[in-house]
Amino acid sequence: MHSIPQLYQRIADTFSQEKFLFEPTELYEPIEYALSQGGKRLRPLLVLMSCDLFGGEIGEAMKPSIGVELFHNFTLLHDDIMDQAAIRRGKPAVHKKWNANVAILSGDTMFVMAYDYISKVRPEYLPQVIDLFNDTARKVCEGQQYDMNFETRTDVSIGEYLMMIRLKTAVLLACSMKLGAILAGAGEEDTENIYLFGENLGMAFQLQDDLLDVFGDTEKFGKEIGGDIVTNKKTYLYLKAFELAQGDTLVRLSSLFAGHDIDPHTKVEQIKEIYSALGIRKYTSGYINEYLEKAQVYLEKISLEREKKEALRNLALELVNREV
Amino acid sequence: MHSIPQLYQRIADTFSQEKFLFEPTELYEPIEYALSQGGKRLRPLLVLMSCDLFGGEIGEAMKPSIGVELFHNFTLLHDDIMDQAAIRRGKPAVHKKWNANVAILSGDTMFVMAYDYISKVRPEYLPQVIDLFNDTARKVCEGQQYDMNFETRTDVSIGEYLMMIRLKTAVLLACSMKLGAILAGAGEEDTENIYLFGENLGMAFQLQDDLLDVFGDTEKFGKEIGGDIVTNKKTYLYLKAFELAQGDTLVRLSSLFAGHDIDPHTKVEQIKEIYSALGIRKYTSGYINEYLEKAQVYLEKISLEREKKEALRNLALELVNREV
Repeated sequence: MHSIPQLYQRIADTFSQEKFLFEPTELYEPIEYALSQGGKRLRPLLVLMSCDLFGGEIGEAMKPSIGVELFHNFTLLHDDIMDQAAIRRGKPAVHKKWNANVAILSGDTMFVMAYDYISKVRPEYLPQVIDLFNDTARKVCEGQQYDMNFETRTDVSIGEYLMMIRLKTAVLLACSMKLGAILAGAGEEDTENIYLFGENLGMAFQLQDDLLDVFGDTEKFGKEIGGDIVTNKKTYLYLKAFELAQGDTLVRLSSLFAGHDIDPHTKVEQIKEIYSALGIRKYTSGYINEYLEKAQVYLEKISLEREKKEALRNLALELVNREV
Repeated sequence: MHSIPQLYQRIADTFSQEKFLFEPTELYEPIEYALSQGGKRLRPLLVLMSCDLFGGEIGEAMKPSIGVELFHNFTLLHDDIMDQAAIRRGKPAVHKKWNANVAILSGDTMFVMAYDYISKVRPEYLPQVIDLFNDTARKVCEGQQYDMNFETRTDVSIGEYLMMIRLKTAVLLACSMKLGAILAGAGEEDTENIYLFGENLGMAFQLQDDLLDVFGDTEKFGKEIGGDIVTNKKTYLYLKAFELAQGDTLVRLSSLFAGHDIDPHTKVEQIKEIYSALGIRKYTSGYINEYLEKAQVYLEKISLEREKKEALRNLALELVNREV
């Protein structure tokens, strides 16, 4: 079995060896730019780890793992247009560095490239791989639509929010793990259980991301703290706070989120105070742990030696216990 | 063998039976709207005709043929944003009826649905089908990029224009025919030759479209005449006119295309006069015939009875001799 640093090295090597720049350069330069900004490469890592755990050849999973990362980056290109997000990984987003048309068409091309890389599997695995990927891509689009719908709705429930992050984020992590298992020739039950492990891990991961956005350390988190608060994003923290707040606290919370002329820094600080008073951090951590426990249930069902499963469990904990 | 009206009926029936509306409706309603505007359904027809000619079961080609039409409609959704085209098939384009974000995300979803429908083939055909489709989709994106690049360039050659329409339009017709042949179990040489037949037919088809845009009959053509002239699109007609025009004619042509405050109707009429004087219609028809002859060469190489090939040849002539 390979260590996580070894797998990361393989991913980095493959990315540097693959060619992403073709003619016309106007189409491919933004793709190269987006891919050169790095990112965690978490999804390829999950593909390779899962393949490795089930005894597969990670060489056979390299191209499909890159396909998943291309897909993820394609969604970022298009989401950043829709969300009017100017910065991605500390650099201008593609639609800002170039323009929206470039981000649309280079994004579309990345999407095709994603399918191309994902299809580089043994023919006997292709039907299952394509079905999995089609299903996942469709869900990710639906998740983004719900995310946009929620921006203008005032009655979003916690259940709806969880459904949205499941579609938008968790299923792609689940897909990555299942893909690795398929390519290793794992049985149907195991591939389904690793999918559900990945899905619950993905839920924990996104909730942790929401928590870090409010309570994280700017340097370690890699982006500005409080972004979700400034944009009034209806995260679990926001929804839970409105569920719990009463009387004066509710009035203050509402007026802080409704206020247009409030200084963003002040807004973040004051809302953090309310969140702390309401115990939002504890509630969120509790939820994260629930998802981790669910993930653990599926992990236990998988027919691998305990020791190998331990590696997955450690990865899960490591991913979620990112510096808060 | 099925007649063209029979095949069209099958396509219409399938479209009306398939479900395209799911939750969230905000995502799928624009897809249903785009598909309900009709269009020629030329690409599914080519898939089915080709499958039928090679003795395949057209029932097995129905879903993939719909996949190609979904892909085509996805490109229209995104192209209309990029080209700022307000009207599509006589109705508001999706990005106008809703907005650009809707057209981006519903377009992406149509793209996934296209892959989903195209993948509904026997497992033994899937690798070839996916490779063909990935290659085609990539080329279509590249063609759209060249098309946009040419808008701001003043030195576009006829050769470059032909390369652009080959990528943007012809390869999808070629892909449709090859797809039908693959699904009918045709041999490698035949599938390659029907691809090249379709590609050359596609070139003739696009050049005919350019010709109709200038010299067609508004009612029969289904869109306003002279659109390419009004938007200064560098079509074959435009490029050939600049190649041939000299002296005063060249000066007039340049000033008509450069003029910003000229009435569009006057611009179209005056440029049509110059095109006529330069014999542009004859040159374009000559080029169209050259492509039809090339298509014929590939058709002859195909191992089908003469009678069946005659049906394809007639379709080709019918497609291109659309009412000019």
